[in-house]
Amino acid sequence: MSAIRASGKTIGVFDSGFGGLTVLRALLPRIPAAHYVYLGDTARLPYGAKSQATIARYAVESARFLEARGCEFLVIACNTATALALEDIRHAVQVPVLGVIEPGASAAHRALAPAPAGEAQGRIDVLVLATEATVQSHAYRTACNALGLHASEFACPLLVPLVEEGWIDHEVTRSVLRIYLGEALRLGSPRTVLLGCTHYPLLTPAVQEALRELGSQALVIDSAEATASAVSTALADANGPSGGPGTLGSATFECFATDSVEKFQRLGSFFLERPIREVHHLDLGG
Amino acid sequence: MSAIRASGKTIGVFDSGFGGLTVLRALLPRIPAAHYVYLGDTARLPYGAKSQATIARYAVESARFLEARGCEFLVIACNTATALALEDIRHAVQVPVLGVIEPGASAAHRALAPAPAGEAQGRIDVLVLATEATVQSHAYRTACNALGLHASEFACPLLVPLVEEGWIDHEVTRSVLRIYLGEALRLGSPRTVLLGCTHYPLLTPAVQEALRELGSQALVIDSAEATASAVSTALADANGPSGGPGTLGSATFECFATDSVEKFQRLGSFFLERPIREVHHLDLGG
Repeated sequence: MSAIRASGKTIGVFDSGFGGLTVLRALLPRIPAAHYVYLGDTARLPYGAKSQATIARYAVESARFLEARGCEFLVIACNTATALALEDIRHAVQVPVLGVIEPGASAAHRALAPAPAGEAQGRIDVLVLATEATVQSHAYRTACNALGLHASEFACPLLVPLVEEGWIDHEVTRSVLRIYLGEALRLGSPRTVLLGCTHYPLLTPAVQEALRELGSQALVIDSAEATASAVSTALADANGPSGGPGTLGSATFECFATDSVEKFQRLGSFFLERPIREVHHLDLGG
Repeated sequence: MSAIRASGKTIGVFDSGFGGLTVLRALLPRIPAAHYVYLGDTARLPYGAKSQATIARYAVESARFLEARGCEFLVIACNTATALALEDIRHAVQVPVLGVIEPGASAAHRALAPAPAGEAQGRIDVLVLATEATVQSHAYRTACNALGLHASEFACPLLVPLVEEGWIDHEVTRSVLRIYLGEALRLGSPRTVLLGCTHYPLLTPAVQEALRELGSQALVIDSAEATASAVSTALADANGPSGGPGTLGSATFECFATDSVEKFQRLGSFFLERPIREVHHLDLGG
């Protein structure tokens, strides 16, 4: 893992809830000299069931808040907002904006390089596991196709509630993963499995275990790590060739939530794998 | 089950989503001569995480729509809206309004009559299983206490997603119920178990099985049936003594949803246990 020099940089991370904290967790050691502002629009989640216009309005409001708060770079750590509102957000703010979908697809592409030749029928380069809303948007399939990868998408509705229940290393979760992956693997044998939801990185070991049990050797790609890596690269490029490994200071962060700060503190610490001492309440309206 | 004469009555049933269809399912055979209008505010669910003011605004808008649609009686088949907005709804409309909490508590009270004497420590008359939001509102505990019953509330966050995944008669669901109920029974041995969420009646056999396996003889009370029974009684009272068993016509219903009508049709038919041929889309704003 390479850390880049970005002293004084303020990076905004936005999600509809807690899941994006896995992206923040991946960012902290990679870009340790930065200050992070995390915003979870918890009062209006889930975004998945809402219309594109509503999601764009919510996401733009959140992005503008982060820009006004001094963020010089925005990470949209929310699959739904990335799939449906990335361009709206880019138009609404002056700072660079990176979503969570393209980095995941690119990481799969790098892992598979050189790209397999031919159009072998039934070839699955990437099996994308995601929520029903993300699968229905086909955003990952589109991003993978753009890189010449054949993607298959599979909805796993129970994984978010299982993670939020804290059942990470739990027999019920292992059973559910065996059922979901068993069904997904019937479509063909994928070369990579892309965790296309920011809750899922917490299940990486359980997904790897279930794949092994099912006889699959697919490589598991963590979209939170892939996104953090893409942010690191983007900032290094912006900083010029001086951006190399560095240990300038240690990362600081502050958290905002639009719903209960107590719940955010409790559940968020679990996602971030470190204590969140304070959460500020933010009212973005209904 | 007694059916009452209510020819021509139009009854509105409101929920934030699909769960209230278990209440409609219980109403159809009880009051077969009525016409039902069901409204699922699916675009704005879940209500659980939202503020009281927001929930009251949403619920009042929905209730006013049903009244304008000709409903002469409203059933609030949503635990959160009942807990946080029943009085607001009653003030906003001219027709009688019945929520889903008091009928459940009353059914437990009837099942336990004569009420056990004394204040035996650790006595649990009613174990309420519900979502985290309903548990946090303590609406069931308050309603039970008002009837002299000692209630204990236990949050079961995975049950709604399991039901929505269609895993009703499923080993994973049985495992989850054994875990939840095993934990809940550590607090004491309840005399009744009240299903305090409109999704849960679909799990009645699985809950009964798990209780048996855990050595509990608690009686399971289905809040959807309890509510339908209370509506039937309220209408019979309003109709005077003529309200007795009757088979005047067969119930008709129409459904409105604020989000995807396809999803409502697919998932709703499963909750209602009969096909929903048409769902009308309704826009109540953001």
